[in-house]
Amino acid sequence: MIKPGQLVMLVSPKGKRYFRVLQPDEVLNTNDGHLQMQTVMEKGFGGRVYTHLHRPYTVIKPTLYDLIKSVKRQTQIIYPKDIGYIILKLGVAPGSKVIEAGAGSGGLTTALAWFTGDHGRIYSYERREDFTALCRLNLEKIGLESRVELINQDISSGFAQENVDALFFDVRTPWDYLEHVPSALAPGGPIGFLLPTVNQVSILLSAMQNRPFSSPEVLEIMVRHYKPVPERLRPQDRMIAHTGYLIFARLNAPDPDMDHPAPSIGEQEEKYAE
Amino acid sequence: MIKPGQLVMLVSPKGKRYFRVLQPDEVLNTNDGHLQMQTVMEKGFGGRVYTHLHRPYTVIKPTLYDLIKSVKRQTQIIYPKDIGYIILKLGVAPGSKVIEAGAGSGGLTTALAWFTGDHGRIYSYERREDFTALCRLNLEKIGLESRVELINQDISSGFAQENVDALFFDVRTPWDYLEHVPSALAPGGPIGFLLPTVNQVSILLSAMQNRPFSSPEVLEIMVRHYKPVPERLRPQDRMIAHTGYLIFARLNAPDPDMDHPAPSIGEQEEKYAE
Amino acid sequence: MIKPGQLVMLVSPKGKRYFRVLQPDEVLNTNDGHLQMQTVMEKGFGGRVYTHLHRPYTVIKPTLYDLIKSVKRQTQIIYPKDIGYIILKLGVAPGSKVIEAGAGSGGLTTALAWFTGDHGRIYSYERREDFTALCRLNLEKIGLESRVELINQDISSGFAQENVDALFFDVRTPWDYLEHVPSALAPGGPIGFLLPTVNQVSILLSAMQNRPFSSPEVLEIMVRHYKPVPERLRPQDRMIAHTGYLIFARLNAPDPDMDHPAPSIGEQEEKYAE
Amino acid sequence: MIKPGQLVMLVSPKGKRYFRVLQPDEVLNTNDGHLQMQTVMEKGFGGRVYTHLHRPYTVIKPTLYDLIKSVKRQTQIIYPKDIGYIILKLGVAPGSKVIEAGAGSGGLTTALAWFTGDHGRIYSYERREDFTALCRLNLEKIGLESRVELINQDISSGFAQENVDALFFDVRTPWDYLEHVPSALAPGGPIGFLLPTVNQVSILLSAMQNRPFSSPEVLEIMVRHYKPVPERLRPQDRMIAHTGYLIFARLNAPDPDMDHPAPSIGEQEEKYAE
Repeated sequence: MIKPGQLVMLVSPKGKRYFRVLQPDEVLNTNDGHLQMQTVMEKGFGGRVYTHLHRPYTVIKPTLYDLIKSVKRQTQIIYPKDIGYIILKLGVAPGSKVIEAGAGSGGLTTALAWFTGDHGRIYSYERREDFTALCRLNLEKIGLESRVELINQDISSGFAQENVDALFFDVRTPWDYLEHVPSALAPGGPIGFLLPTVNQVSILLSAMQNRPFSSPEVLEIMVRHYKPVPERLRPQDRMIAHTGYLIFARLNAPDPDMDHPAPSIGEQEEKYAE
Repeated sequence: MIKPGQLVMLVSPKGKRYFRVLQPDEVLNTNDGHLQMQTVMEKGFGGRVYTHLHRPYTVIKPTLYDLIKSVKRQTQIIYPKDIGYIILKLGVAPGSKVIEAGAGSGGLTTALAWFTGDHGRIYSYERREDFTALCRLNLEKIGLESRVELINQDISSGFAQENVDALFFDVRTPWDYLEHVPSALAPGGPIGFLLPTVNQVSILLSAMQNRPFSSPEVLEIMVRHYKPVPERLRPQDRMIAHTGYLIFARLNAPDPDMDHPAPSIGEQEEKYAE
Repeated sequence: MIKPGQLVMLVSPKGKRYFRVLQPDEVLNTNDGHLQMQTVMEKGFGGRVYTHLHRPYTVIKPTLYDLIKSVKRQTQIIYPKDIGYIILKLGVAPGSKVIEAGAGSGGLTTALAWFTGDHGRIYSYERREDFTALCRLNLEKIGLESRVELINQDISSGFAQENVDALFFDVRTPWDYLEHVPSALAPGGPIGFLLPTVNQVSILLSAMQNRPFSSPEVLEIMVRHYKPVPERLRPQDRMIAHTGYLIFARLNAPDPDMDHPAPSIGEQEEKYAE
Repeated sequence: MIKPGQLVMLVSPKGKRYFRVLQPDEVLNTNDGHLQMQTVMEKGFGGRVYTHLHRPYTVIKPTLYDLIKSVKRQTQIIYPKDIGYIILKLGVAPGSKVIEAGAGSGGLTTALAWFTGDHGRIYSYERREDFTALCRLNLEKIGLESRVELINQDISSGFAQENVDALFFDVRTPWDYLEHVPSALAPGGPIGFLLPTVNQVSILLSAMQNRPFSSPEVLEIMVRHYKPVPERLRPQDRMIAHTGYLIFARLNAPDPDMDHPAPSIGEQEEKYAE
């Protein structure tokens, strides 16, 4: 028994996936015929339901990975491999408040909304109206729109929020907006960037040197899939070679005591007390 | 102002990190002298506090990445690069119920507890008593122990839970326990494994062929860090070449209609409806 | 001025490449019309020649890389990234004698013949008649056939040569033929293998443990290309993720003194005297 | 029986390697006592010889890989993974004439001299006197010095050679010397570069756009080693993450017919005629 309002993924006999926020009186029109959502509700996750043409659909509780892959896109979306790492580095948790600059199609927005839960809040800025609309559509389809404040606005005049827990930039020239970070992000808070070219990384690092950021970190993540054949196990022939470089840093705390400046966080090798 | 019960990270002038669940009357003994947690509470995140020897400490709200790196370990722990991806593939969210087989030092346990929040529940099985104790210690240090049921027990007789949202194995011979998965994991639910050698991956894939699992996926994740020098940008000289292979699959739904068997999930190329 | 008998590469206006061993009286029929090889000879490398339809062709001295890419294939060929490393590890040099088991389409054969020169000798075994013919065709096209003895024969009864400098296996079950190595390869000589799956690597390593081989080494080589755009430098989106695993070892020298067995080569960390 | 003048590698019981051009009357002083090279000559490759303290040494015919690893270095040397690919892309063969700008310790010089053989010629420019001396020493130790013309000279005034088959730059600012390439390299000839940072790659690509070069290619090569344990096969824990970026291009042929400019080589997708 699935509760109304819960998100379900319906998998067709050919593997096609439909996402729906369950409404018992809805009828889903598929390529294989009509499907009563009332029946989906009653069968529950893992259940089998049939269209009016007797085609079997499987009812699945989707993972975040399923959702990200389902995002309808007009832009390059951020990949799951990168999203997982971003979430950890930004410290996103149930209840977090996060600013995202450059929502695009909403892949990362989906993940941020997923993890912050009903008590968190995502502020997603997007300059282009068409992308804002697409992002909204993608969020609505999976019922996460209430957790996200979508702001169709350029960030050149800064952010309306204060003291958010984390900030992520997925824009072409993030260095142009660094000045707006201290008033929006909590002191000591984590900041992240995704950039496709090395030239952009270089410019960003340079710009950060004159700003109150510490512990800059640059990295890239590669995922290699294997053919899952036990007796002939080997990597797939081809792989994604590049999506983008990830850059992370911390906003420094303001220094109240100029005579005894504290070291910036992470200037030293990380050490952990027992 | 930080609320009692919140987690804080205190960074010493030399970069050493202390984690504490804030209790206003505690006095932290550091290598640099005593620190009043009352002062930490008042200064707030991003603030500067001084030991009785006048050494400045910075008060930071830790990210999950910080916590994972701080785990005191007696075992090989799972790396952030792998944890981020696992969380996405397992669909872990606020409120999730997850079984972890093989808690070890508690690196993944920490992440699972972090993301499922106060309304979720982690069931962590660990055969060895010393590891169970260490894992508990690590969770207590960061105040996440209430979200985790630590079970110091072999899994050869199965799991006590039913219908959990996801299941992860970090044990040496996971194929020995596959039979216990269907009674514990919700139908259609995601399952994951971490294995260090190709031989283990091959044995596991083979064992899964005779069990109700579909969509097996094998992959490895590599992270390459760069020296963050804008005018001489280049990868670090060395990197971690291997931590382990990740394997994911879905538990099939039981088939109520043997005359019209449904396809297993993911047998086909994934397709997404608009 | 190019000498008759030299190898030339002719590049069409559309980038199509033709390879010819120069014969002054030949007329090359291209998609762009006839080309007099006499003119090619006179213009020399780097020169421009015209077909009877006035289409310009450029005369180039091909590199080994050009030749390997031009190999007409019916089999998976060995990639340049792997060939370069194989050549170094096998110690192939002008004058070397090398056995290749599994010639296939002749990609590695081409490289071996290229480097050993007129005074070396390549012994290439190939079980299938069609591959043997194809390999011969590929070698003839570039004028290297005289350096190669192509042997259309199964290697299950061993090799006819003795004391060759190096031996390379590109066959599916190389472990079946290890017993024939000591009589063919010089003592202390290098041996190499290419295998696509981890299962094969594991079986081979196991089989080598009972044979007089030392210093086994297993590796894989990945090449990542970048888009050569100076102001937007970034890796290509996709790359070859896997061609095969390379395995190298040394044939032990026979031990004349059983009372004082010498260590096998490479059992220890490599050290180099000044 | 080894001929005087041949190169031998002597491996000590502890794996230490000595390289010598065999002279029958030499006595090698090792940490394990004196070794008569006369005996080495008689025993032959694969043989066992004893020091006057009765320690067994194994006589091996070294591979190029052995030689490169043995290079005594004061500079960062080029790695075998890169050298193998460079050799293929430059078309180095027995008899080739090659210019190397920036000899350093002589790692690549060794490889070039190895493959071009007695009829080839390597012109190695090195600005620093100490590196020139070290490079000479390294070549003499292995008997390849006669194939190399070591030129202790800055290349800012160009190269003394004409029409060489290939040219390789291992210097910090290769873009400063591109103007000297056309007079030294054969038209259509291959040129290569090794550069450690992305900034250098970007500057070089930019500089090449205004010069007669075509088909620029940028890439990096990664080698991942495995622990050669058949029943627990897995990659080594750590690997070299970066040595340098390789850049390759072709020198255009001069255009004799400005009214009908030919396309530069490789401007198009490579295609190969049957």
